[in-house]
Amino acid sequence: MMAVLGENRYGKAEVRVVHVDRSRQPHTIRDWNVSISLAGDMREVHLSGANDRVLPTDTQKNTVYAFAQRLGNVEPEVFALALARHFVDDRAGISRARVQLDSYGWNPIGPHSLARAGGEIRTVTVIQDEQSGSWVLGGLRELTLLNTTDSEFWGFARDEYTTLAETTDRMLATSVEARWRFRSADCDWAAAHDKARQALLDAFTGTYSYSLQQSLYAMGCRVLAEAPQVCEVRLALPNKHHFLVDLSPFGLPNDNEVYLAADRPYGLIEGQVLAEDAPEPGPAWS
Amino acid sequence: MMAVLGENRYGKAEVRVVHVDRSRQPHTIRDWNVSISLAGDMREVHLSGANDRVLPTDTQKNTVYAFAQRLGNVEPEVFALALARHFVDDRAGISRARVQLDSYGWNPIGPHSLARAGGEIRTVTVIQDEQSGSWVLGGLRELTLLNTTDSEFWGFARDEYTTLAETTDRMLATSVEARWRFRSADCDWAAAHDKARQALLDAFTGTYSYSLQQSLYAMGCRVLAEAPQVCEVRLALPNKHHFLVDLSPFGLPNDNEVYLAADRPYGLIEGQVLAEDAPEPGPAWS
Amino acid sequence: MMAVLGENRYGKAEVRVVHVDRSRQPHTIRDWNVSISLAGDMREVHLSGANDRVLPTDTQKNTVYAFAQRLGNVEPEVFALALARHFVDDRAGISRARVQLDSYGWNPIGPHSLARAGGEIRTVTVIQDEQSGSWVLGGLRELTLLNTTDSEFWGFARDEYTTLAETTDRMLATSVEARWRFRSADCDWAAAHDKARQALLDAFTGTYSYSLQQSLYAMGCRVLAEAPQVCEVRLALPNKHHFLVDLSPFGLPNDNEVYLAADRPYGLIEGQVLAEDAPEPGPAWS
Amino acid sequence: MMAVLGENRYGKAEVRVVHVDRSRQPHTIRDWNVSISLAGDMREVHLSGANDRVLPTDTQKNTVYAFAQRLGNVEPEVFALALARHFVDDRAGISRARVQLDSYGWNPIGPHSLARAGGEIRTVTVIQDEQSGSWVLGGLRELTLLNTTDSEFWGFARDEYTTLAETTDRMLATSVEARWRFRSADCDWAAAHDKARQALLDAFTGTYSYSLQQSLYAMGCRVLAEAPQVCEVRLALPNKHHFLVDLSPFGLPNDNEVYLAADRPYGLIEGQVLAEDAPEPGPAWS
Repeated sequence: MMAVLGENRYGKAEVRVVHVDRSRQPHTIRDWNVSISLAGDMREVHLSGANDRVLPTDTQKNTVYAFAQRLGNVEPEVFALALARHFVDDRAGISRARVQLDSYGWNPIGPHSLARAGGEIRTVTVIQDEQSGSWVLGGLRELTLLNTTDSEFWGFARDEYTTLAETTDRMLATSVEARWRFRSADCDWAAAHDKARQALLDAFTGTYSYSLQQSLYAMGCRVLAEAPQVCEVRLALPNKHHFLVDLSPFGLPNDNEVYLAADRPYGLIEGQVLAEDAPEPGPAWS
Repeated sequence: MMAVLGENRYGKAEVRVVHVDRSRQPHTIRDWNVSISLAGDMREVHLSGANDRVLPTDTQKNTVYAFAQRLGNVEPEVFALALARHFVDDRAGISRARVQLDSYGWNPIGPHSLARAGGEIRTVTVIQDEQSGSWVLGGLRELTLLNTTDSEFWGFARDEYTTLAETTDRMLATSVEARWRFRSADCDWAAAHDKARQALLDAFTGTYSYSLQQSLYAMGCRVLAEAPQVCEVRLALPNKHHFLVDLSPFGLPNDNEVYLAADRPYGLIEGQVLAEDAPEPGPAWS
Repeated sequence: MMAVLGENRYGKAEVRVVHVDRSRQPHTIRDWNVSISLAGDMREVHLSGANDRVLPTDTQKNTVYAFAQRLGNVEPEVFALALARHFVDDRAGISRARVQLDSYGWNPIGPHSLARAGGEIRTVTVIQDEQSGSWVLGGLRELTLLNTTDSEFWGFARDEYTTLAETTDRMLATSVEARWRFRSADCDWAAAHDKARQALLDAFTGTYSYSLQQSLYAMGCRVLAEAPQVCEVRLALPNKHHFLVDLSPFGLPNDNEVYLAADRPYGLIEGQVLAEDAPEPGPAWS
Repeated sequence: MMAVLGENRYGKAEVRVVHVDRSRQPHTIRDWNVSISLAGDMREVHLSGANDRVLPTDTQKNTVYAFAQRLGNVEPEVFALALARHFVDDRAGISRARVQLDSYGWNPIGPHSLARAGGEIRTVTVIQDEQSGSWVLGGLRELTLLNTTDSEFWGFARDEYTTLAETTDRMLATSVEARWRFRSADCDWAAAHDKARQALLDAFTGTYSYSLQQSLYAMGCRVLAEAPQVCEVRLALPNKHHFLVDLSPFGLPNDNEVYLAADRPYGLIEGQVLAEDAPEPGPAWS
């Protein structure tokens, strides 16, 4: 029986680069974790170990640092696009590059001092494809949100394994992971990010929710409405269960006051919301 | 502008279930982390919050525990298949179910005592699809392997950002993440797992390597050769860099003896190896 | 040879409790992770397994939830004190209780909506001791701070293993772990916490630093100066190294602009700063 | 109000060093994570930032790598002792050094190939003190053990918050963290480690347990009995709760067969067992 090589890619993952801009006070920084994946005709290296088409992952790491100096204080989407295009357009034998980037927030606390913002991480993915060009995904993850009320869950399907009680007032919490596809590779990235982020917050807090799916769909729709540069949103929303504790054995009431925050298991709701006129995604999500 | 709902799924993630078989000594356990994802026509719950087609994730959790009792001491593939088929075949409105399962190993240390094996985790993914039937992926992750020698890396592409020195004797280490697709949903699962696992070890240790890509391809081919029930292998191999420390400032030699084990960044090599006659994967990897 | 039982304690760790106060808008929450340790004469349970002096850790967990309801929206120090005193004063056979508590921050984003603050965690430790009474430690951890300049490091001791270059302008970053001992168990806890926290920020940002030790001492002194209820501060400051990347192989300058953020190893500076008149700590840090 | 500097120490944490011994087949490796803490008269660096007594943590890191080459394939206790003595005996101004070391296990799978053992980590702590000399602690952590039966829990203290049912047959699982103090700094370290480890396994599996405290004490006693070089054992045993799932709503039995493995909260039992003639510990545990 013959084996054949299928899809493959390689690259350097988790290059930690920090860029400082001292041109203005307060100083600002870009604090990123950059991962690169390259694909091309790589049969030889798999079959015989001949490396002449392999740009070392060490070189890719060096390129990240060099580009950080060359490009300076730019939005992460700009950086990822430049880096991905460099590999596909300016290096031999690379037909597709993916650059993924996590951006950590910092807040100024002095003219040259900052405190890590904590909370959510801004994400960028760029695919540069020899055939189809540039694809940009914005996003964020670890944005943890909670509504203390205005959430119900009832009327669900039941079978012999169903023991869950219906509720007309529950706590609803999630840790938002969202990615959105831009229509083009040219955009006011910072403004678009802020609008998409705010849309997620507004839809989560403003939706009287009968299910987390409903909140998810509202969040996706709101991003599309507020950020017209975006044509598709994908969301993964863990249902971070908060269970009301039964205090009746101790003679105590619990009028939606004391909750147990559970770790595992958790519900996981995943969905995609598209603009009606969204173009085909091509390799954007690959 | 109109928004439309795209692909979506929902389920309970990370249900921790342990089954004990006391019918023989030493007692044996199945220690699993089970995640379920269900898809069907879920437009209504997203658009209006009407939950009548939603089987609660709490019910899914209960089903895991009930099936653990019903099925008893079975291979994880058998469990995942039964669970996935239950949702698609026996519940209304579910057109596709995915069951993912991590299995933790334990070794007997007494008639009713066990020690956690540590190291690798065995993985199973089953897709049950209304149209195309059952799809089974076996696998493992966190299998950390190291060759102290018989690895070279030279003759690679160079550009102006390349500073890496060529080497004809380096340490090669990786943490294997492998998934393999079975040709059918009927198999001696335990035997197949053992053969695939051993094939990975044998190919990694037995390949004189000029690149991690070459080792990856050899590992995939070996699994296909040793486990003919498997038609496709996907591997993700981080290059866990061990850098030779320069001790010359201290007047000391370092003849491939003292290494710095680095965390980040790391190379990441991903590839797919298929049997020439592998059938189409359908939704197997979705 | 005879064995003897030495110090021992037991309890329930990581009880996750969330309290919601809906009496005002925006709703506020207390999101805590509570760990309890109890000590007393526990020889019998160790020697023979007789449990009559053992208050089950499950009971301790229940007590956390009951106290959350009884006490309502209080500062974490108040909660920990009440809980610790309950075990020592109102249960038999417990001579010392330690309650440790992590408090996670949330910011309001709507009348009944909140977003997890991320970043630092507020910490509380209370020791209630039959002999010596109540001891309260406040604190925080995971407060990540960075100065882009105003940090030097030179004039250090050298030996044959020293290769580090001196620098008169380096980036200085740390993740602050601080605990401070209160003089008494009666205090405006929220105000004291804010003052101590702000003192840490001000001293870190305001110190022109020749070593992280110097910054540490300045931070401890500032807390004592700004929060007179505090008589002792203990700090653990990892030096989160940011290394200037050498871009000269690529013909590029690097004027304190592009850094590599390293994971491991890291410097770790630990120190204690006391008010001159600080009373003995007794079991406060045990 | 005057502030005074209290106890302090500094050092390099988490130096990842791997030593390869190719002198025999199969090749063997030492895979360690080394942390150093030094103390001495460090007032000046805290007060004024004068670094002339500060041996840079970068130098400490270099020293680890140099000693790995000089010492070669030795037990981790030997390495830690040599390193700690170097700092106190051969460098100026250091009165106490602590070296902590995690050792990761690897199993041979070929003449020059190894697989990470997973599971437990062997630990070593050495304190070298100018006044009192050398102190050595051996240990391990993340050794996860489980008894499927022979564990009861009943007859415990009850109060108004107690709801736990008594049981005469429960699953008992823990993740052992153990440290043991050696009587002297001269020992067959490998043999002593093996004996202590085996004693922990034997006592856990061989004890019919009425409480985890009883198991803890039995484990400590067994180490003292089997490894007479050891004079004190400290154990921290989380009670990794496995709850029997109530399957009665589904009409199913559950005769100690199906369990939920819980994450948080967990019981935590800590205790110390000493040989009757154990000398004072001095700074061993500091």
